[in-house]
Amino acid sequence: MPSIAELGEFGLIKQLSKRVKASPHVLKGIGDDAAVIANMPDCVILATCDAQAQDIHFRLEKIDPVNLGWRAMAVNISDIAAMGGKPWFALISLLAPAETDVALLDNIYIGLQACAETYGAAIAGGNVSRIPNSLIIDITLVGMADAGALLLRSGAKAGDSICVTGTVGLSAIGRYLQDHPSAAANIPEEMAQKAILAHHKPMPRVAAGQWLAAHKATSAIDISDGFASDIRHICEASHVGALIEAKQLPISAEMAYIANMLQISADEFALSGGEDYELLFTLPAEETETALKSLSVAADVPVTKIGVITEKTDILVVNDGKTIKLDRLGWDHLSGQK
Amino acid sequence: MPSIAELGEFGLIKQLSKRVKASPHVLKGIGDDAAVIANMPDCVILATCDAQAQDIHFRLEKIDPVNLGWRAMAVNISDIAAMGGKPWFALISLLAPAETDVALLDNIYIGLQACAETYGAAIAGGNVSRIPNSLIIDITLVGMADAGALLLRSGAKAGDSICVTGTVGLSAIGRYLQDHPSAAANIPEEMAQKAILAHHKPMPRVAAGQWLAAHKATSAIDISDGFASDIRHICEASHVGALIEAKQLPISAEMAYIANMLQISADEFALSGGEDYELLFTLPAEETETALKSLSVAADVPVTKIGVITEKTDILVVNDGKTIKLDRLGWDHLSGQK
Repeated sequence: MPSIAELGEFGLIKQLSKRVKASPHVLKGIGDDAAVIANMPDCVILATCDAQAQDIHFRLEKIDPVNLGWRAMAVNISDIAAMGGKPWFALISLLAPAETDVALLDNIYIGLQACAETYGAAIAGGNVSRIPNSLIIDITLVGMADAGALLLRSGAKAGDSICVTGTVGLSAIGRYLQDHPSAAANIPEEMAQKAILAHHKPMPRVAAGQWLAAHKATSAIDISDGFASDIRHICEASHVGALIEAKQLPISAEMAYIANMLQISADEFALSGGEDYELLFTLPAEETETALKSLSVAADVPVTKIGVITEKTDILVVNDGKTIKLDRLGWDHLSGQK
Repeated sequence: MPSIAELGEFGLIKQLSKRVKASPHVLKGIGDDAAVIANMPDCVILATCDAQAQDIHFRLEKIDPVNLGWRAMAVNISDIAAMGGKPWFALISLLAPAETDVALLDNIYIGLQACAETYGAAIAGGNVSRIPNSLIIDITLVGMADAGALLLRSGAKAGDSICVTGTVGLSAIGRYLQDHPSAAANIPEEMAQKAILAHHKPMPRVAAGQWLAAHKATSAIDISDGFASDIRHICEASHVGALIEAKQLPISAEMAYIANMLQISADEFALSGGEDYELLFTLPAEETETALKSLSVAADVPVTKIGVITEKTDILVVNDGKTIKLDRLGWDHLSGQK
């Protein structure tokens, strides 16, 4: 395919439009000054935006462009899931150098559409801009939720159970393997690929989020910065602390195996790795047992209780009988430091 | 102020949040996984996004950061105006190098908030990302409109009058003066500053757009790419042509004076300059005279009839008795060519 400079703005928009499926929600999509979306009665509107920038959030030479599109959409869908909402419509802002191959953007759009469709969102419009040096996919996603059933970060109360969907840390192991091919060569190919795919193609927990919003969860966040950082967000917003049992952190069999092979700490990856896009949430203690069983079935995902909310605002981790105070270990996007 | 690397992501968000004013529409702003916005009954939702990228859309050394923020918001508000809608809420995605001075972003946010507030929009949330090399302000703006009164590009009919608000070309002259300081030195300082301000601080025509949506305008677009390109968008979407009288193009006294001083063609700047953010629209012939008077008063802006929609799909410009066929003269953002 030609470069975007050869095709021009209007030609590129025409090509990418072919990848976008019509939706009954979108009354007027690409092709006017703004998209027009049919409104839904009796809901509040949720809105989030997140950008994926080349060489910061992804490396073009390491990720399949279809997965890159999926991932860029999925990280936004995960934010809507963490509010207990339903994805509704997205706007895609593509910023790319003039020499970018249109085929690359075309494949990214295939991934964007696939992910949006899987989770019930429509691509309503967007923008393309020429920039020097690198590719950026910047997405704004709008969702909807019942006004009376929102999952905020701020409702956790002392005594609440702290729980998490799925497993944590595999995405960070995947990123490590992606960036260290010589380490990846030491473990079974299929296992390495599974970890890397966890990093490249996250599966946001929309069904779990909606279940939690409807069933008295007191707070929720998606694990994007890393468990240690994200539990802190809940504690700060709720003015509480947390006591975490390290041994309860749900680590997948693949992850335990890979960490063991590479002699790296699975616990550390699980605590501070980030980009799992699982839901970390709190529930009243007395609801926990029944709720976890129902949620697990309703949303088809394992759910694990890993600790308890405390009145004192420290975040403590119990491991092998020792209690340590958790430092600010999550990923800080700007300073690039743990 | 420190750099954003020194302050970190969460510190930066805290600082920028101070610039954002609370709005009754925004039930939950910055600080959770997504913003929560109160819905409005009986409207359709409009959504648009537009990015301003350093050295492509602006030069940091040439524009006041407060105006840069204003401009980044205004170009989005103009798209909502061109649909006949009201601005509602915006999400701001800032992408900036780690060494960026927080004071720069702080001033940009002052401009973003000032423009949003002027036109009735709330800043509901956003995202900050570290990227190498350059600064990008990417905004998604959501608006609302009556379902039965939308201004699309596609409704122009043969015989309709073609009209435009305000004047065209001054923004392009301003950009020329910004980029050619030696030319600017030849004309009165105050006049040069007025032209440059037209480029740096556009005033979108929200009131005019809403008036047109409620009063039988058949199509509308905002002049962003340039008059020649934007009339073509209307003609293509409506499957019609246009006959334009060059002498009717509304050129401000400043612009005529500057063009004369610099011996450049005011007509050419007016036709192909772009970034005026005026509304170009069509009206049934029989409504035109009364409508233009009422609109001009209601929206406090001069309005000029400049031509007529034709059945034949050519775009013709009459000038000094000669008729020329208009080529594709508007700015193409990706190829960077006229």
